[in-house]
Amino acid sequence: MPTVDTALSLQLYPLCGQDNAIVVVIDVLRATSAICTAFENGAKEMIPVANVEEALEYQKKGFLVGAERNGEKLEGFDFGNSPYDYMDPKIKDQTLVLTTTNGTQAIEIAKDNYMVVIGAFTNITALSDWLIKQDKNIILLCAGWKGRVNLEDSLFAGAVVERLFQSGKYETFTDASLAAHQLFLSAEGEPGHFLRNSSHRRRLSKLNLKEDIKYCLQLDKSVQIPVLQDGVLVRLQVEEKLGA
Amino acid sequence: MPTVDTALSLQLYPLCGQDNAIVVVIDVLRATSAICTAFENGAKEMIPVANVEEALEYQKKGFLVGAERNGEKLEGFDFGNSPYDYMDPKIKDQTLVLTTTNGTQAIEIAKDNYMVVIGAFTNITALSDWLIKQDKNIILLCAGWKGRVNLEDSLFAGAVVERLFQSGKYETFTDASLAAHQLFLSAEGEPGHFLRNSSHRRRLSKLNLKEDIKYCLQLDKSVQIPVLQDGVLVRLQVEEKLGA
Repeated sequence: MPTVDTALSLQLYPLCGQDNAIVVVIDVLRATSAICTAFENGAKEMIPVANVEEALEYQKKGFLVGAERNGEKLEGFDFGNSPYDYMDPKIKDQTLVLTTTNGTQAIEIAKDNYMVVIGAFTNITALSDWLIKQDKNIILLCAGWKGRVNLEDSLFAGAVVERLFQSGKYETFTDASLAAHQLFLSAEGEPGHFLRNSSHRRRLSKLNLKEDIKYCLQLDKSVQIPVLQDGVLVRLQVEEKLGA
Repeated sequence: MPTVDTALSLQLYPLCGQDNAIVVVIDVLRATSAICTAFENGAKEMIPVANVEEALEYQKKGFLVGAERNGEKLEGFDFGNSPYDYMDPKIKDQTLVLTTTNGTQAIEIAKDNYMVVIGAFTNITALSDWLIKQDKNIILLCAGWKGRVNLEDSLFAGAVVERLFQSGKYETFTDASLAAHQLFLSAEGEPGHFLRNSSHRRRLSKLNLKEDIKYCLQLDKSVQIPVLQDGVLVRLQVEEKLGA
């Protein structure tokens, strides 16, 4: 039976020690939620880049670029990290470029594994249903905050663990998955209440981003599963989604 | 108000970024439980060493030496990592030497901070009562298992967070402390049940160490607070314990 492991922060990913796994990159507030939103709203592909210099080069070449650091949109770029930015009609059929504080770093460290997909509450059902059909080991990679553990990504990892366990097709041997699962169970369907004291929620609240938080905690606003192919995020095709 | 931070594994300790904190080293199954037992049973001091070579050198000099790797006592040494090993009358007034898979590594990485003390369920009340009086920032350092997060150390960290919060004298700004606290609350006073699936519990159960696990999850078998002084663990003196 395939296993599900969880890296509660980027620092812990190398210890998962799996080079033939599907890695789910998780940065619920807000990078991976925003990425799902972009594909739901017609973006053709997204190029994740780890640093601002690279993002600038793409901008010079005429790409639409999203850039965020420390919760704020960087001046001069087209978008920040808010899902609402990616509801703009001008993204339709475009190749976007994105760099964020944590999420794009997570994609970078996972890129050499078997497969990298993007997870958020906003695509949890599409993602989990697809994962259940894959019969591959899974690593849930929480981006966290600058290497540190955060509550919202751990909570989401636990929500996916719950769905994988419920399918009867996955097991875990790692305490990080069990801990995330326990956190999810103790949140009892009230993620907003559960996260009321989380450090990043407080950080974003100060930046007047409460609407973003509310959006990012909603389930199934998207049926898209962004997947990394040759360094570029594209939408997973229906055939693959059906487990073919 | 001083803060309590939590490193859920050794890898995450450097990110706590505090060099003026009391660090509580936690390796519930079983190093820190065993250390408390040794002091409760009259050991004079314990020298933690990170590797087996150092342990061997001390043994040649005539010291009593405990050495464990991967849950098992290393052949040729006096003790392993079981608290029961440290109930032996011959340890009374002796200087012991100890090397373990995770616990002594945690002491090593924390040693340059303001103060390092040893925590386990077996000394939780003595430890927490003393911490509450110190008015210093605290880092709860979970040794984990080879750098990975484990449930039992996270649970213990959460139990200490609960006592610090209850005192009204500590606050936290970090999600790792909140996550550990939530895990503790969800265990609802049944740590054995909570840990039934933990990876290290299963590892130790295979080694016939169920009695050890039961012992390590008991509260307040000891009133000792081992503290690191000049690289050697000694018992914290009563004056300091009273917060003088």
